[in-house]
Amino acid sequence: MAEHIVASFDEELEHIDRLLRDMGELAGSMTQAATRALLASDTALAQRVISDDTIMDAKQGELDERAITLIAKRQPMAQDLRTVVGAIRMASDLERIGDLAKNIAKRVGAVGQSAAPRRLSHSIDTMASMVLHQVRAVIEHYVARDAQAMVSLRDEDEKIDIHYTSVFRELLTYMMEDPRNITACTHLLFCAKNLERVGDHVTNIAENAYYILTGEQLPVQRPKLDETQMTAES
Amino acid sequence: MAEHIVASFDEELEHIDRLLRDMGELAGSMTQAATRALLASDTALAQRVISDDTIMDAKQGELDERAITLIAKRQPMAQDLRTVVGAIRMASDLERIGDLAKNIAKRVGAVGQSAAPRRLSHSIDTMASMVLHQVRAVIEHYVARDAQAMVSLRDEDEKIDIHYTSVFRELLTYMMEDPRNITACTHLLFCAKNLERVGDHVTNIAENAYYILTGEQLPVQRPKLDETQMTAES
Repeated sequence: MAEHIVASFDEELEHIDRLLRDMGELAGSMTQAATRALLASDTALAQRVISDDTIMDAKQGELDERAITLIAKRQPMAQDLRTVVGAIRMASDLERIGDLAKNIAKRVGAVGQSAAPRRLSHSIDTMASMVLHQVRAVIEHYVARDAQAMVSLRDEDEKIDIHYTSVFRELLTYMMEDPRNITACTHLLFCAKNLERVGDHVTNIAENAYYILTGEQLPVQRPKLDETQMTAES
Repeated sequence: MAEHIVASFDEELEHIDRLLRDMGELAGSMTQAATRALLASDTALAQRVISDDTIMDAKQGELDERAITLIAKRQPMAQDLRTVVGAIRMASDLERIGDLAKNIAKRVGAVGQSAAPRRLSHSIDTMASMVLHQVRAVIEHYVARDAQAMVSLRDEDEKIDIHYTSVFRELLTYMMEDPRNITACTHLLFCAKNLERVGDHVTNIAENAYYILTGEQLPVQRPKLDETQMTAES
């Protein structure tokens, strides 16, 4: 009987893990599709990202429900409890990544066919690829129970921040060059910031995953780097 | 003995409630101080907001720790479990409000003494007041166990969104008017967006509070209104 309960608990945990993986894949594909839609002014694709967010929310709702029921019914302790609570937190970060992708998708219309995004497409594309790699890697390493990978993932986020700073500066120059670029560029600014924030959520997920896997906090939080906040007026 | 355990559970819940209240007050005062620092170019005040965020993070850490220990040790069911899990979620939203206030504070230097924020100060101030009222009200009503108040709080958020849209448009015109305003205005744009996002987190808290108090979801989610995403290029 005890065996049966244990097996069933594991099955439940596995189901939660599967939901996390689904959400991770969805977060990745939404981020990718939103960036593509933005760079190609593809409003149909943008619309798909917007509807995908409903699926993401539903999956988070299901995960939460299952996790809470699991805690209430099985009263897990130590590592098991950490895993369940950690899954709730990771799901919340994945859901926010979905929101950020949706927000990018919603701006596709406002950015439109403006010339600025075409000139910027390489920079934004590079940034999106870095972010996408992070989103996919964090879930993959979590599923593989690879705690050490989380350390390097968190460090990788710094590169995204540096890239964001350069996109931010580039956008400012386009706005200064021609006021007709301003509306489109402000929306692109938010899009780039959203990608940078996706990176921050990956960092949160990496920290949570590390905690679940090791029971310890990731050593020494690196200082948050958004240099655009320091940009002098000029 | 059972009585003793029940009393102790209530004491623990009360402690968690107290932490939530503290975090709510801190979220309010950080938002207020960050806006003041921004409008008065007060870098010392901005610095205080930045250090307050460490206190916020510590309080969230303590709340999480206590809530998880409570779940593991006392195995609460139904409403009690909902309350504890809900507290974890509300704390996460409050912590993000702290992050947003910190982000505003970090931009104080970059906005500097530029003329644009002075001309905009009335609009931003109004927006900040609306947001501040929401942050304070949501915790107050939660402590008073007033579920109905959550419905109107969520509806109030729409006014903040409308105000944000007008600040956004105003900022665009300043940028178009004089390219020297662009750097300061983009930072102000992020500040205004941050205030709007504080409002979104209040909405999340209201939804969670409603669920804790009634066991039901807040009826009919109002559609998210950020009209700036629809702004046509012009």
